[in-house]
Amino acid sequence: MKIIIVGASGTMGKHLLNAFAKEHDVITAATKDCDVQVDITSTASIENMYRQAGAFDALISTAGPSFVGPWKKMGDKEFRKGVDGKMMGQINLVLIGQHCINPKGSFTLISGALTHDPQRNFANAAAANGAVEAFVRAAAIEMENGLRINAVSPTVIEDSPQYFPFFPGDIPVTMQQLEYGFRKSVFGANTGQVIKP
Amino acid sequence: MKIIIVGASGTMGKHLLNAFAKEHDVITAATKDCDVQVDITSTASIENMYRQAGAFDALISTAGPSFVGPWKKMGDKEFRKGVDGKMMGQINLVLIGQHCINPKGSFTLISGALTHDPQRNFANAAAANGAVEAFVRAAAIEMENGLRINAVSPTVIEDSPQYFPFFPGDIPVTMQQLEYGFRKSVFGANTGQVIKP
Repeated sequence: MKIIIVGASGTMGKHLLNAFAKEHDVITAATKDCDVQVDITSTASIENMYRQAGAFDALISTAGPSFVGPWKKMGDKEFRKGVDGKMMGQINLVLIGQHCINPKGSFTLISGALTHDPQRNFANAAAANGAVEAFVRAAAIEMENGLRINAVSPTVIEDSPQYFPFFPGDIPVTMQQLEYGFRKSVFGANTGQVIKP
Repeated sequence: MKIIIVGASGTMGKHLLNAFAKEHDVITAATKDCDVQVDITSTASIENMYRQAGAFDALISTAGPSFVGPWKKMGDKEFRKGVDGKMMGQINLVLIGQHCINPKGSFTLISGALTHDPQRNFANAAAANGAVEAFVRAAAIEMENGLRINAVSPTVIEDSPQYFPFFPGDIPVTMQQLEYGFRKSVFGANTGQVIKP
């Protein structure tokens, strides 16, 4: 299976690359240090990524820029970071990518537990997650040619301990649990699901 | 109680105006034909609305522009209609309005059943709804001075029969049910809730 991993230079992306590269043809995409350079806040850059990658069977996105910071600093400008990044960046990966993906292919986006279980400083990520999850359900009933789409929604992850203090009471998701969430979406038959690893 | 209704010239807004104006001081806001003119896609226009309205106790928004149309026509440009309108328009009403509202005041935004129960042609509204609902939960744990925030999430409404064909199987929400959803948010004590009327 030919799989594009967007955000492949990040903590989640690197783990998924290691996990999937043994058995699959993985193309890594990120802002740097990858097979294909992509800035998901630009539709032109996304189109260029798909042109370079060629036809593929699955797209995994672990790319979710958003504004993390005190509520008092949160205005329209800060909020747009997650809107243009984690939300529209990922939605545009699907809106554009559906025309390049092979029939029966799949899209797997990243959301997060903040959608339903907010923590301080993360209102922007929460809203972006909520948008991505609702989009996944809506896109699943619209896409053709057997295409599938899901989101993986972890809480804080094991390999990002710097975030633990911001997620009091959240039991970190292990990298293996996270990987299995993506496995279910990419290699399973579900669509329109928010998978909690 | 001094209540601002944004979207007061629309179907929902008119009903709520009639319902609440008997007992409360209601200021109507919309793009036209209202006490205060406002374009919620512009932060400058929102700031101007709050300046004109003065201190208030509750903001109700029924304003939700989004792109409705075939999936095949859905690109970044179309999607931004709901992002800048129903999503960021409403979020900016809160981010800006929290500095003008009286202590213990409330914000009540509009989302919709499409968040969890998609229908064809409405992926943009679904994503905007999901963002608004997650934002409401996140904002509720951040706001100070006893401020509250909720969303009212109806399916298709009784007085908009032109939408019935697009919502097969959805039992329309009566205008009274809708009104009672807003009553619960504005006059009750809940916060961070998505109220299904």
